[in-house]
Amino acid sequence: MIARLTAFFALIALPVFADVPVKEVTSPGGLKAWLVEAQEIPFVALELRFKGGATLDPSGKEGAVTLMTGLLEEGTGDLDSQGFAAARDDLAASFSFNPSREIVGVSARFLTDNQDKAIDLLRRALVEPSFPAEAVERVRMQILSNLTAEERDPGAVAAKLFNEITFEGHVYARPSEGTHDSVKALTVEDLKAAHKAALTRENVIIAATGDITAEALGVLLDKLLSGLPEKGGALPGPAEVHLSGQVVTEEFPGPQAVILFGQEGIKIDDPDFFPAFIASEILGGGRFGTRLMTEVREKRGLTYGIGAGFSSLDQAELLTGQVQTANATVKDTIEVIRAEWARLPDISEDELEATKRYLTGSYPLRWDGNANIARALVGLQLQGWPIDYPSKRNGYIEAVTLAQVQAAAKAHFRAKDLSFIIVGRPVGLEQE
Amino acid sequence: MIARLTAFFALIALPVFADVPVKEVTSPGGLKAWLVEAQEIPFVALELRFKGGATLDPSGKEGAVTLMTGLLEEGTGDLDSQGFAAARDDLAASFSFNPSREIVGVSARFLTDNQDKAIDLLRRALVEPSFPAEAVERVRMQILSNLTAEERDPGAVAAKLFNEITFEGHVYARPSEGTHDSVKALTVEDLKAAHKAALTRENVIIAATGDITAEALGVLLDKLLSGLPEKGGALPGPAEVHLSGQVVTEEFPGPQAVILFGQEGIKIDDPDFFPAFIASEILGGGRFGTRLMTEVREKRGLTYGIGAGFSSLDQAELLTGQVQTANATVKDTIEVIRAEWARLPDISEDELEATKRYLTGSYPLRWDGNANIARALVGLQLQGWPIDYPSKRNGYIEAVTLAQVQAAAKAHFRAKDLSFIIVGRPVGLEQE
Repeated sequence: MIARLTAFFALIALPVFADVPVKEVTSPGGLKAWLVEAQEIPFVALELRFKGGATLDPSGKEGAVTLMTGLLEEGTGDLDSQGFAAARDDLAASFSFNPSREIVGVSARFLTDNQDKAIDLLRRALVEPSFPAEAVERVRMQILSNLTAEERDPGAVAAKLFNEITFEGHVYARPSEGTHDSVKALTVEDLKAAHKAALTRENVIIAATGDITAEALGVLLDKLLSGLPEKGGALPGPAEVHLSGQVVTEEFPGPQAVILFGQEGIKIDDPDFFPAFIASEILGGGRFGTRLMTEVREKRGLTYGIGAGFSSLDQAELLTGQVQTANATVKDTIEVIRAEWARLPDISEDELEATKRYLTGSYPLRWDGNANIARALVGLQLQGWPIDYPSKRNGYIEAVTLAQVQAAAKAHFRAKDLSFIIVGRPVGLEQE
Repeated sequence: MIARLTAFFALIALPVFADVPVKEVTSPGGLKAWLVEAQEIPFVALELRFKGGATLDPSGKEGAVTLMTGLLEEGTGDLDSQGFAAARDDLAASFSFNPSREIVGVSARFLTDNQDKAIDLLRRALVEPSFPAEAVERVRMQILSNLTAEERDPGAVAAKLFNEITFEGHVYARPSEGTHDSVKALTVEDLKAAHKAALTRENVIIAATGDITAEALGVLLDKLLSGLPEKGGALPGPAEVHLSGQVVTEEFPGPQAVILFGQEGIKIDDPDFFPAFIASEILGGGRFGTRLMTEVREKRGLTYGIGAGFSSLDQAELLTGQVQTANATVKDTIEVIRAEWARLPDISEDELEATKRYLTGSYPLRWDGNANIARALVGLQLQGWPIDYPSKRNGYIEAVTLAQVQAAAKAHFRAKDLSFIIVGRPVGLEQE
């Protein structure tokens, strides 16, 4: 019965991506991209990810990459921010620029028909930003205002503390947006240096979906990116994950506490990766019926929602989760989470099959539309998956056996290393 | 030059929807739906809109339809909310239920391969909800908690007051979620009555996109909806729009005031509709370069963002806008908005052409993916557009002349009727 089920789901899931093949494109100038051609609507969704991000900020210049990215659409050549926006709207294009800890992300959507003009406008923003003084001060004020808001948000305070503890001594421990002092001190020279360090041809990852051929995409990518330097700042080295069972509390007013919890994760090329991933879905997939949701929310009413799962940074692997609960129930909540970690290996065949059905069945729904496909493809490249991953992924899930998932749960969910970072006023909790 | 531009954009915009034709489907049982077949991914996005919504609440039972809709996924037959969620996840389906003033919206996504099971599960939620006492109390508490939160949110307070003033004497003036008193008093019998009144075959509007044929969709819709009553509550009659230049203030603490402004709108079958729509985009499209954004934000720094536009209810047409500003600058902001209303007819050929290019160029980008297409199609039906609207819409925009848009701006943007509802502590503003 199990074998038949497996074959059945493999049948429905695999043809999907055989119909929507991913091509690797190499531009005349040597840039690589993943492409899915889709002619239904005459537009292209383009996703760029520049590796490095805020980790490239020099010491004392924290926040430089974030501020620089916030200024890319705010002035280039003779265009100020309004002129740029008017030119973009005139082409019916949309661009967005998203800085984060180890990435600068750029998303663009433009009509096939005027793609040369749209790419030239995007090129001006990416390659020739002018950092006008008025815009620098305006965006700097927005970032300072965000920093103030984050100081009042227990979730943001917890995330900051979690990074500081987990990655102590590594650049991952620093705040991507910088500090009040570092952001106030940033000069236009710092922004120009951040631009040179962070937007480089060697560190860009590219995906595109829509009404464009491989050849046209190659030409367009060279036009867009040939003005950027080949090499930039040095990417950070491996990060050690300093999570070894600590329980750390930061005092914060309010009736609820935010709890982040985590331990070291697993690399995607580990033979246990898929079994461990399925185990994480059984434990903390964030849906009704997962172990944490059942035990913490349904049976005990300690929270509205709870989830946990693996995530990958370029230089570290994590398994993290998040929950909010009343200060009086922090202790109970932590005990339940630890107990679930410990009993995870006791997985039944039914639990495994139900989780496989959900994971394989819901996968196709992620690929709905050019923008979603391009985002998914650039994400897979960042994580280091090969180009045939979309067509093979459901097969990898199906192939996992009960013994494998039980063994992976035992090996990789280590209750003794599970650390808790609490922001609030937990009651009855002693530092352990 | 203008004529050539027009032809050029008509050429690029029209083939899009010739390639993705919308079909009208009639089920064996007589239900009508709009369908776009798309086989790329083996799933279907289905959108239902039941007309009536909260307007069907009997007097004193305000909030019944909202609470009823919130309970559709919380129990049916032998399934409680967790059992329902587990069954849904097992099929990798996703459902959502969204009550509002004059609509109950249902969105579903499910795999073609297990569509019969997914539709049967959705049918159980829609047709056979059991309203278990535990779930009724839980969802009731959530709604009461929302009501409390809205009392503290100046935007929500302003919206409520705007509806009360605009639609005085009509059911549109009532709060969709009810009041603390009405929600507390709702019984299971009230919910059953709301279910009978609001979910009916005569008032449902349907669109689907994805990997399904017209024939299969018809069969599936009959399975889904044949258990619902044909007729339900009486829909409301025409609503008069009582906006005639009032300036109304409701005291609210805080440094910023929320201002909602509006006047009566225009029907989609009015010969002036497209010219007036283009005029509204020039005035308040919410982008950089629109009149309100330029004058209120860019030139005077009175706000972070401002926009205005037409909207349609089933029984009324509105032209509304929204802005937040410091209490000290409410008076200036209102004066600028009134002045922009008055000078709108002074539109240049360049302004018209730039707006046409944006409107026609950005239209295809809305149709990206099954879920977006199905939502767009059900929205068009609700507004009363014919099935060929997607392929003709850009042509309607292109055909508008400068004289038409100037005349429509003069006729339909009436500064003397423009009313302002202010929630905050505006300075120097007298009731006019």
